[in-house]
Amino acid sequence: MNCEILAVGTELLLGHTVNTNAADLGLRLASLGINVFWHTVVGDNPGRLREAVAQARTRADLIVCTGGLGPTYDDLTKNILAESFGKKLVFHEDEADFLRAFYAKRSRPMTPNVLQQAWLPEGAVVFHNDWGTAPGCAFEAEGTRVLLLPGPPYECLPMFDACAAPYLRSLSAETLVSRQIRVFGIGESAVEQIFRAEMETMKNPSLATYAKEGEVMLRVTAKAATEAEAAALCEPVVRKVTETLGAHVYGVDVDSLEALVLALMKDRGLTLATAESLTGGLIGARFTAVPGASAVFRGGALTYCDEVKHAMLGVPADVLAEKGAVSREVAAAMAEGARRAVGADLAVSATGLAGPDGDGVNPVGTVFVGLAGPDGTWVRHLRLDASRGRALVRTMSASNAFDMLRRYLTGLPVE
Amino acid sequence: MNCEILAVGTELLLGHTVNTNAADLGLRLASLGINVFWHTVVGDNPGRLREAVAQARTRADLIVCTGGLGPTYDDLTKNILAESFGKKLVFHEDEADFLRAFYAKRSRPMTPNVLQQAWLPEGAVVFHNDWGTAPGCAFEAEGTRVLLLPGPPYECLPMFDACAAPYLRSLSAETLVSRQIRVFGIGESAVEQIFRAEMETMKNPSLATYAKEGEVMLRVTAKAATEAEAAALCEPVVRKVTETLGAHVYGVDVDSLEALVLALMKDRGLTLATAESLTGGLIGARFTAVPGASAVFRGGALTYCDEVKHAMLGVPADVLAEKGAVSREVAAAMAEGARRAVGADLAVSATGLAGPDGDGVNPVGTVFVGLAGPDGTWVRHLRLDASRGRALVRTMSASNAFDMLRRYLTGLPVE
Repeated sequence: MNCEILAVGTELLLGHTVNTNAADLGLRLASLGINVFWHTVVGDNPGRLREAVAQARTRADLIVCTGGLGPTYDDLTKNILAESFGKKLVFHEDEADFLRAFYAKRSRPMTPNVLQQAWLPEGAVVFHNDWGTAPGCAFEAEGTRVLLLPGPPYECLPMFDACAAPYLRSLSAETLVSRQIRVFGIGESAVEQIFRAEMETMKNPSLATYAKEGEVMLRVTAKAATEAEAAALCEPVVRKVTETLGAHVYGVDVDSLEALVLALMKDRGLTLATAESLTGGLIGARFTAVPGASAVFRGGALTYCDEVKHAMLGVPADVLAEKGAVSREVAAAMAEGARRAVGADLAVSATGLAGPDGDGVNPVGTVFVGLAGPDGTWVRHLRLDASRGRALVRTMSASNAFDMLRRYLTGLPVE
Repeated sequence: MNCEILAVGTELLLGHTVNTNAADLGLRLASLGINVFWHTVVGDNPGRLREAVAQARTRADLIVCTGGLGPTYDDLTKNILAESFGKKLVFHEDEADFLRAFYAKRSRPMTPNVLQQAWLPEGAVVFHNDWGTAPGCAFEAEGTRVLLLPGPPYECLPMFDACAAPYLRSLSAETLVSRQIRVFGIGESAVEQIFRAEMETMKNPSLATYAKEGEVMLRVTAKAATEAEAAALCEPVVRKVTETLGAHVYGVDVDSLEALVLALMKDRGLTLATAESLTGGLIGARFTAVPGASAVFRGGALTYCDEVKHAMLGVPADVLAEKGAVSREVAAAMAEGARRAVGADLAVSATGLAGPDGDGVNPVGTVFVGLAGPDGTWVRHLRLDASRGRALVRTMSASNAFDMLRRYLTGLPVE
């Protein structure tokens, strides 16, 4: 099935909103075995939306539309799509009841245009919106399938997972299984070189690599009549990749390094502390972005200046003076100090130069990342490419802290 | 001038990379007075790229392409665009010299395909790449202007600003000036209601609103023969909007709340500390993401659990027991404790429930944000909409901390 993702919204065109839905839906559609060949964005403009639909139906069997389902005058996606495919709109009394209850519960005045949202193309499968108000839907016309989803990501993505994905799966006699192998500490080009032959020749399962912010992901995808058969096809490839890449593989079908570390620590009842200089809170922010972090994370210290490294973490003043804040010794003392001050089983630290300014001694991109545990302290010395910018130096520093934790927790060499 | 942004890259289609360039270029093009009506994404596929170019030239005077300028076999943007517009590629010896020097300096082996990057369409204005290797360019053919820019945002955006923006400005006899009024603490629909008449009727200058993550931005844009004349046209509208919205306006042409707070504090030689519970480091991470933060930010404490609130910040155990960690009293004690422990002039704190789990007493979305200074302590009680997710509750908590700081620093009521 060939798909075009068609996003509607002037805020996307003008750059006030990033079209993250297109990426997040792209990932989900790919994992269902659907080929996404085009993304298109148009504004809240009837003529250009009509043109985009006319164009999309010439080249896609499936058009996934996002945005423009709400109650205001510029929400025109549903009307234009219904018109383009010769469908009348039908009023759904149950959706109208839901909308009335929604507004009553929140004591908001319900203007008549709110009920616009209860009109949907005839014959559509309704996707009830448990995360907002406007229902989505799927319909079929003249050989083309159309999905209409709301624009806000916190409505669009849960609706896709709960309603659209099962609908799309039901259209295919085959089942698709996809496994994601997550890799840290080796570049995409090196990974590609190792598996080039498999990537070019294998069809079912297929193997592909993707790079993002210093990490690599390999996806193994297989189709078969049943889920068990598709999973069995994936298995030997997943095994081969994980064996070949060894300790660089941090997980299969896990969300992120920090989610993996949280799960490992929670299982063992271990607690975590942080001591951050150049990352300024990013390690803590990423870890606590994972729901359930409070079972493991106790706290930490942001020690941007030297006095605070000494006062909050007990980093000796003479070490700071002799070795400098960007040093192996200070990273170690910060991690040990955080472990002690917070009273945690493990602590990680990061000190370095994110840029644009340096310290006159070390080049920008020099970072020391520490890990302290009951059985020792380890420090990794990173030489990051500063030309990629301050944000990436900080991100990579935080990722290395999580990588050291997962290596420690799985019995691998930490540094 | 009507524009289409055409991004090339399979990683975008599949969702492994978010097309942030489209948004960032959309903002920049709009500020130059160029109408962006379409964003299109295609993969590294010659046939579909040809189709996309054929389509774009029927509806745009300006096609801005991103991605596919590098040295590998799937970097085909330049070749397809040159072919589509009947241009030969010309070898640029100076760009080749730069590439040779670039690889020599880094002791990387230079494979022959690297020099592919020195071939550019005949007659093109070359955009030398100071942020990577592949040069970009602009050319004109049959009434259409084409810009070719690299895919990585840390190359694409600086090249746009340094090379493409001056090129585009030189095409127009008129000068465009755009002012951005940044607003916090009032919703987009309320702002729209106030200025609906102006937004619908004014043409030069024009006024528009945009919402993002709990903030609103109003843009005033004017065209005139000179920059001074365009700026003078904007001035009364900027004044009217800022006067009408009063204290909700936090700045005109500033980057963000945190960048404004950094600038205000730096000017006065003030220092900052943080005390974070539910935000887990996000306040510090956002503040230290602004270059130059080290002049103001000294450090802070991440106090996720009650014991650490007590140990690191001296929050009294009886206050924690009687009032609970999510309380006005604890937010105040955290901010005061951070100010003391870090030795800073001002400190902000946040404690609350980001979800999904609650504490059995307060609803998810309950947050207390504190500010402590030499002359007092203030606490804001937020009741955030938890249905929008954990990430937005944390973002809004951090934004409120920065908003309290800017109100304190500008003599406005803080709470």
